[in-house]
Amino acid sequence: MNEMKELWEHFTEIMRLSYIGELLGWDQQVNMPKGSVKGRAEQHALIRKLIHSRIKSDKTGELIKNAKKLDNLSETELAMIREAKREYKHATRIPDDLVLEIAKTASLGNMNWQKAREKKDFSIFKPFLKKMINLRIKYAEHLNTGPTLYSTLLDIYEPGSTYEWYSKIFNALKSKLIKIITKLDNSSDKPDQSILKKYYDPEKQWQMSIEIIKKLNFDFNIGRQDKSTHPFTASLSSIDTRITTRIWENFLPACIFGTIHECGHALYEMGFKEEIQDSLLAEGTSLGIHESQSRLWENIVGRSEEFWTYWYPKFQKTFPENLKGYSMEEFYRSMNVVQPSFIRVEADEVTYGLHIILRFELEKMIIEENIQVDELPGLWNEKMEELLGITPPDDAEGILQDPHWGGDFGYFPTYALGNLYGAQIYNEALKEMPNLAEDFKKGEFKNLLDYLNENVYQYGKIYRPSDLIKRISGEDLNPDYFIKRIEEKFYPIYNL
Amino acid sequence: MNEMKELWEHFTEIMRLSYIGELLGWDQQVNMPKGSVKGRAEQHALIRKLIHSRIKSDKTGELIKNAKKLDNLSETELAMIREAKREYKHATRIPDDLVLEIAKTASLGNMNWQKAREKKDFSIFKPFLKKMINLRIKYAEHLNTGPTLYSTLLDIYEPGSTYEWYSKIFNALKSKLIKIITKLDNSSDKPDQSILKKYYDPEKQWQMSIEIIKKLNFDFNIGRQDKSTHPFTASLSSIDTRITTRIWENFLPACIFGTIHECGHALYEMGFKEEIQDSLLAEGTSLGIHESQSRLWENIVGRSEEFWTYWYPKFQKTFPENLKGYSMEEFYRSMNVVQPSFIRVEADEVTYGLHIILRFELEKMIIEENIQVDELPGLWNEKMEELLGITPPDDAEGILQDPHWGGDFGYFPTYALGNLYGAQIYNEALKEMPNLAEDFKKGEFKNLLDYLNENVYQYGKIYRPSDLIKRISGEDLNPDYFIKRIEEKFYPIYNL
Repeated sequence: MNEMKELWEHFTEIMRLSYIGELLGWDQQVNMPKGSVKGRAEQHALIRKLIHSRIKSDKTGELIKNAKKLDNLSETELAMIREAKREYKHATRIPDDLVLEIAKTASLGNMNWQKAREKKDFSIFKPFLKKMINLRIKYAEHLNTGPTLYSTLLDIYEPGSTYEWYSKIFNALKSKLIKIITKLDNSSDKPDQSILKKYYDPEKQWQMSIEIIKKLNFDFNIGRQDKSTHPFTASLSSIDTRITTRIWENFLPACIFGTIHECGHALYEMGFKEEIQDSLLAEGTSLGIHESQSRLWENIVGRSEEFWTYWYPKFQKTFPENLKGYSMEEFYRSMNVVQPSFIRVEADEVTYGLHIILRFELEKMIIEENIQVDELPGLWNEKMEELLGITPPDDAEGILQDPHWGGDFGYFPTYALGNLYGAQIYNEALKEMPNLAEDFKKGEFKNLLDYLNENVYQYGKIYRPSDLIKRISGEDLNPDYFIKRIEEKFYPIYNL
Repeated sequence: MNEMKELWEHFTEIMRLSYIGELLGWDQQVNMPKGSVKGRAEQHALIRKLIHSRIKSDKTGELIKNAKKLDNLSETELAMIREAKREYKHATRIPDDLVLEIAKTASLGNMNWQKAREKKDFSIFKPFLKKMINLRIKYAEHLNTGPTLYSTLLDIYEPGSTYEWYSKIFNALKSKLIKIITKLDNSSDKPDQSILKKYYDPEKQWQMSIEIIKKLNFDFNIGRQDKSTHPFTASLSSIDTRITTRIWENFLPACIFGTIHECGHALYEMGFKEEIQDSLLAEGTSLGIHESQSRLWENIVGRSEEFWTYWYPKFQKTFPENLKGYSMEEFYRSMNVVQPSFIRVEADEVTYGLHIILRFELEKMIIEENIQVDELPGLWNEKMEELLGITPPDDAEGILQDPHWGGDFGYFPTYALGNLYGAQIYNEALKEMPNLAEDFKKGEFKNLLDYLNENVYQYGKIYRPSDLIKRISGEDLNPDYFIKRIEEKFYPIYNL
């Protein structure tokens, strides 16, 4: 079995280089002095070069070929070969100069996107967007793994996914979400958020966020939390997972739910079984599944009534001026306001999916239907009206709100999968432990974590997302679990 | 001139890898969760492997050969070739398995050194010390750059140095230091340290340490200070230099002088001229010169009367309970106590050199005179009595106090050079600016920094240490400047 060991070690070295790259990035966001950017950028480029040249090397091809000849391969070993082939294919099919041009355009594009957003002027961003669209189409043509160009791009981020698969799910989701939102909007007893928008002492917010993730079994022996402008999770090895949060003095959810969200990502990364640690299989099996874990912990757990039964008294003690006289129910309702809004990253649990569907439908047109870039702002606003019933006042609140199209297409849709996968997986956990949420009232989350470790986390990339969800639930991804969950949760909140 | 550019870029990539290694180390000391050691160790090993294989590659040899053929090379380019040859020689002359065995023995040795020190039992450490001595002798035989084995080892850490060179300096130093210490010891008016041994609030110590290095022109735009168990300086690029300090609640000098010491190292690293940044020449030219800068800022500046004329009132305001009623003179005297003691790292500015001379004389015997390891503890104690007039109560306070011999020989002596180089360089600065110390009274240190940047820092490794000191002072390293300085400083402190 030496051939397998060699392949394994080859990719373990590549993983170690990528962990080092993660440290370079984490440090840059958390610690690095402002004036040190140039040196760090060079180091980053060097690590990327080392990783890329190793993956696309003849050695990789050789190792895969040799390993494939072996008999009696285990499930894990077969997964190893599958993932190695995937990496090799991605690295060898794309010409180096295309990679370079995309990186250059993305970097220029991002700078100009910032300027455009600031000035609310789409024309500043337009030439870069146009160029990036052409480059990404070329990229998909070279890669050519899916039935269509857009499917090829979608598969990069959610392995096994296609446009057809996504459309089926998103079409079912779309109509139901619109129905629910309309119904909630017609309620005469809506919650309001003012309680969350008072001044909350930053140091106390930080302390509470640490208390919460300790209870959620975030392992501080192999992880830490810090502060950064945008919250993120970084894996510096299979036994070193770090999350960040941000603190807004006048909006409590930013820190608390940001922390729980990243903690969910981290619990996944902390849960790989020892056999696959630091290997090519030691990653979330897809962005959608990864996001399902952050959303599950953030929304299903963190925004639940049971969770706050335990935490609200502690918050009342910590922030007595803010919370005195408010009932737990008021607090719980306030963090579950549903309200169509322009900016995706600030959207609530229910409307969020429609923001993604908007981008998904436009991306299909952009990549496959030869849409003119000039038409995009108008199309954006039309879709927004159609899906959420509102029209952005300008492009900064519209098409210019996200930086993604300066670099990627096919990435956005994974954001919507999280809620769906999460609801379906949680539904299965409830079958095994119908009273699971009772745990939360006591500040206990170990049973849920054990379930997720057992069924999801330990496997890393061994099972592809479609196989994983089938193993767990016996069926393909089905948005009905999510729909059912939000109906059962939000109608009572809105007194419907 | 393409051949020079290629050589330059080859080593710049190597430097970038070593900066990445520094980040791995810095993060481990400052941030890394306790349980993450194994993953980090693997990453460290990988970076070291990449660096080593690049330096010893045929490509390096080829690039040096091609560059050497060029005409009209500048001083900087000649230095580049000289340093590249040095690296190549060190990497190619030592067999890989010897490197590996030294690393393994050092790691085991260090573990057992800790145990031995704890139990005050030399026999636990003895077999590893014996093995390491043999390995280091083998190492010197392979490297074979100096006139003798010990000279070869000395040259590793202080390029150009030999046993003969060191002995001449140390012999002159030894007798004079002993004379001064005896004289101080006979004073009837000695300072005492009790004022420094009160409880000093850690947070306030930290704040003051930051204030001080800001005034010393530590550039926080390309650097930072953090806390760690042992203070150190790390260069994460030529525009990212980080220092650490430690805070002892009941001993003020640990934090304050630790910070100034590391700041001195950092100012050196921050001062390389742009042309050589991130290149093979972007390092201190030797350990001795590097240490001269930390000592210069710590002792010549930080423990001077003028420095505290500015800072003492601020410290009085910060620590009113501790310092009320104490004069600046009392405070200044207390931080300049001279007292023979067993532990090197706690030794004062004057006795420190004798600790080093002790190790230097023993190292010569160990490497070249076939001394039996059994004899070492006794020899240590005899030397201690001879040089400092005291005998360690046990081996933990004697031969077991330092971990160095578990890995290195030839390194210790560089520690003593710092004071000597520092005094000689400062003496030159005074020739240019006789009233330099008046600046310190006003909290101004820019003139001194400018002098050091101009004469030392900007050049990195362009000049070898012996050339550098000659360029600055017109003569070789001469311990008399140091002797003169401490006589002029300490006799008044001791009212002699």
